[in-house]
Amino acid sequence: MNKTIGVLGGGQLGKMLFEAGSPMNTKYVFLENTENCPASLVCQHQILGSLKDADKIKQLGELSDVLTFEIEHVNVNALIDLEETGKSIIPKPHVLSVIQDKGLQKDFYAKHNIPTLPYKISSSEELKSTIESWTEKKFVLKHRKGGYDGKGVQLLSKEEFQNLLAIQDDSINSSDGYVVEKMAEGAIEVSVIVAIDQQLKSTSYAPCEMVFDTKSNLMDYLITPSRLSEQVNARCEEIAKVTVEAFKSPGLFAVELFVQKDGNIYVNEIAPRPHNSGHHTIESSYTSQYEQLNRILLRQPLGDTSLIQSAITCNIVGPNNINGPYKLDNLNLVLKIPGVYVHMYGKTNTSPNRKLGHCTILGTNTQELEDKFNRVKKLLTIKSN
Amino acid sequence: MNKTIGVLGGGQLGKMLFEAGSPMNTKYVFLENTENCPASLVCQHQILGSLKDADKIKQLGELSDVLTFEIEHVNVNALIDLEETGKSIIPKPHVLSVIQDKGLQKDFYAKHNIPTLPYKISSSEELKSTIESWTEKKFVLKHRKGGYDGKGVQLLSKEEFQNLLAIQDDSINSSDGYVVEKMAEGAIEVSVIVAIDQQLKSTSYAPCEMVFDTKSNLMDYLITPSRLSEQVNARCEEIAKVTVEAFKSPGLFAVELFVQKDGNIYVNEIAPRPHNSGHHTIESSYTSQYEQLNRILLRQPLGDTSLIQSAITCNIVGPNNINGPYKLDNLNLVLKIPGVYVHMYGKTNTSPNRKLGHCTILGTNTQELEDKFNRVKKLLTIKSN
Repeated sequence: MNKTIGVLGGGQLGKMLFEAGSPMNTKYVFLENTENCPASLVCQHQILGSLKDADKIKQLGELSDVLTFEIEHVNVNALIDLEETGKSIIPKPHVLSVIQDKGLQKDFYAKHNIPTLPYKISSSEELKSTIESWTEKKFVLKHRKGGYDGKGVQLLSKEEFQNLLAIQDDSINSSDGYVVEKMAEGAIEVSVIVAIDQQLKSTSYAPCEMVFDTKSNLMDYLITPSRLSEQVNARCEEIAKVTVEAFKSPGLFAVELFVQKDGNIYVNEIAPRPHNSGHHTIESSYTSQYEQLNRILLRQPLGDTSLIQSAITCNIVGPNNINGPYKLDNLNLVLKIPGVYVHMYGKTNTSPNRKLGHCTILGTNTQELEDKFNRVKKLLTIKSN
Repeated sequence: MNKTIGVLGGGQLGKMLFEAGSPMNTKYVFLENTENCPASLVCQHQILGSLKDADKIKQLGELSDVLTFEIEHVNVNALIDLEETGKSIIPKPHVLSVIQDKGLQKDFYAKHNIPTLPYKISSSEELKSTIESWTEKKFVLKHRKGGYDGKGVQLLSKEEFQNLLAIQDDSINSSDGYVVEKMAEGAIEVSVIVAIDQQLKSTSYAPCEMVFDTKSNLMDYLITPSRLSEQVNARCEEIAKVTVEAFKSPGLFAVELFVQKDGNIYVNEIAPRPHNSGHHTIESSYTSQYEQLNRILLRQPLGDTSLIQSAITCNIVGPNNINGPYKLDNLNLVLKIPGVYVHMYGKTNTSPNRKLGHCTILGTNTQELEDKFNRVKKLLTIKSN
């Protein structure tokens, strides 16, 4: 009766996908190299192996009715081969081929008239001359491949780049090449989750805004809906849908956008999977991003994406000074605050900036949400154990 | 870091308790006789054994930091012995001693001035004379022990009773004795979930009303909040809290009440565990009944019991004409309706009236809820497979 979903990756996104499928007893099998991965806490069906290993991916396909991935860094060619045998893979592997390479991704947007910031693609050898020909004082330097969670992305001035050249820094010596991109100065960053079913019918969620700490310039929290005007929010959803639809593939996608003060909106990049900016949907929305992906994979109708309540989500990340076992401090004080939901990913060890969990806060208005968030932020801390 | 909760019983209530604990990676071990029980679909840690087996209960205690039960029919003496060794059992076993015996339960209410319908306790031998001395024309005859899901409860006239006597029917021949009780004619049946933490602080959920089909007289659906006045709902919550507080035990309880047209409210009975009438809280409330019980067991603060949206829940039960494997028909049509949540318990076989799952519907008003319910009711059917 119940279909089996094969998932490349067994991290927290896989764990939450399982949790969303549990009320209907959906079956899963995870391919993951780490034995005590987050997904293993809920699902005993795991293939131990690398996401680059074509044989393991083939094995995953044999055990599954449909495949998906919860991380981009997988062997795409193995997925393409599997798709050619008739196996259903969602999103389609050709989406990954584009998204894994930030150069191809930018070219894809340009080709489809999707608004994106000016850029130049450059090999490592050409990088010096590319930057010399760049007319802006500052630029964003992105590795074409392998970047993740902000790694492989640097904001630089021309002077800073010259200094890196002088010391032959590793960060400007990637054989995969680079994208040099204009900086979205003063832009507000929002993210829109877009869901596309197997008939390519699409729907989207309310935009989620990334709010940065003005002192540290690190992301403080995510708020949904964004504090932009209704009109701008609607425009963000529209651009996000058009962007994802251009890939002509079912799946669940997060589209990161820059909204500039002049009203211009640019697509930054896409994640072809559940996303941090959609965690809040578990509690805030009629259909969570995870249930939505399950519905897409199982050929069920798309669920209602309406927001029931506004939400703030913050990541619970490893502090800079701890490596190893940890504990979550003040949990009981946080649980006293109404409408607060803590999700921990079951990772045994922390390391600086490692995502250990997240916390979602529900509220009826922005002020209430920010007040609750400030209390949560002060209380919830990771300590060494 | 994470405590282990031992649960007597591995049915759907245990499965949903696990699902509520999964975001915080709470650990569970279930004692259950059936190998492919609902809880086993999410939790691999099961002791195979009877809920009457003192040794197995002791073994469960050794593996757990705290014990609870998801069914009343367990070996109470074994739990009392375990409690005496210092093991934390929630609710306390003395609550079960009272609740397992409908006679003791009625006496408990009488002793604590809790409003309950007039009754007489009778042994099997005295039953004839007890009923002859009963002044009302009709009465409810309840087995003191072993009743479950309406089994062991009969509404009878004196004539019907005489007929059963004449044929020496099994239903009036129980060695555990009987409660003869006045019928709550025309009463509305509501249920209130009450949560009490380990410091004996209590909170309650909005009353849930059982709505019966006027033709079949079978329960059609559960609606929360009940359609009674705010004042009557508040009074129901108050009586439910006083009733549960009288037991002086932490735990999560469902208090079933009769509300009569004259405004009188009577306690019918209590279930010392998550309850059908609280299933809707998974989607409708800030804190589900399952998360609430987890919080109580783990010494966390009680969660907010406020309702976010009104809800209807209906049971998905086995039809009268099917025994064996089954399938759920029209699921995709049901999932097209916004705000509809289907939970299946993963039971392999159906039998008449067996609880196979439930469906919760969210809505902003009674009319919207009833309209959606009528569509769901027509569509969602169990067919043989």
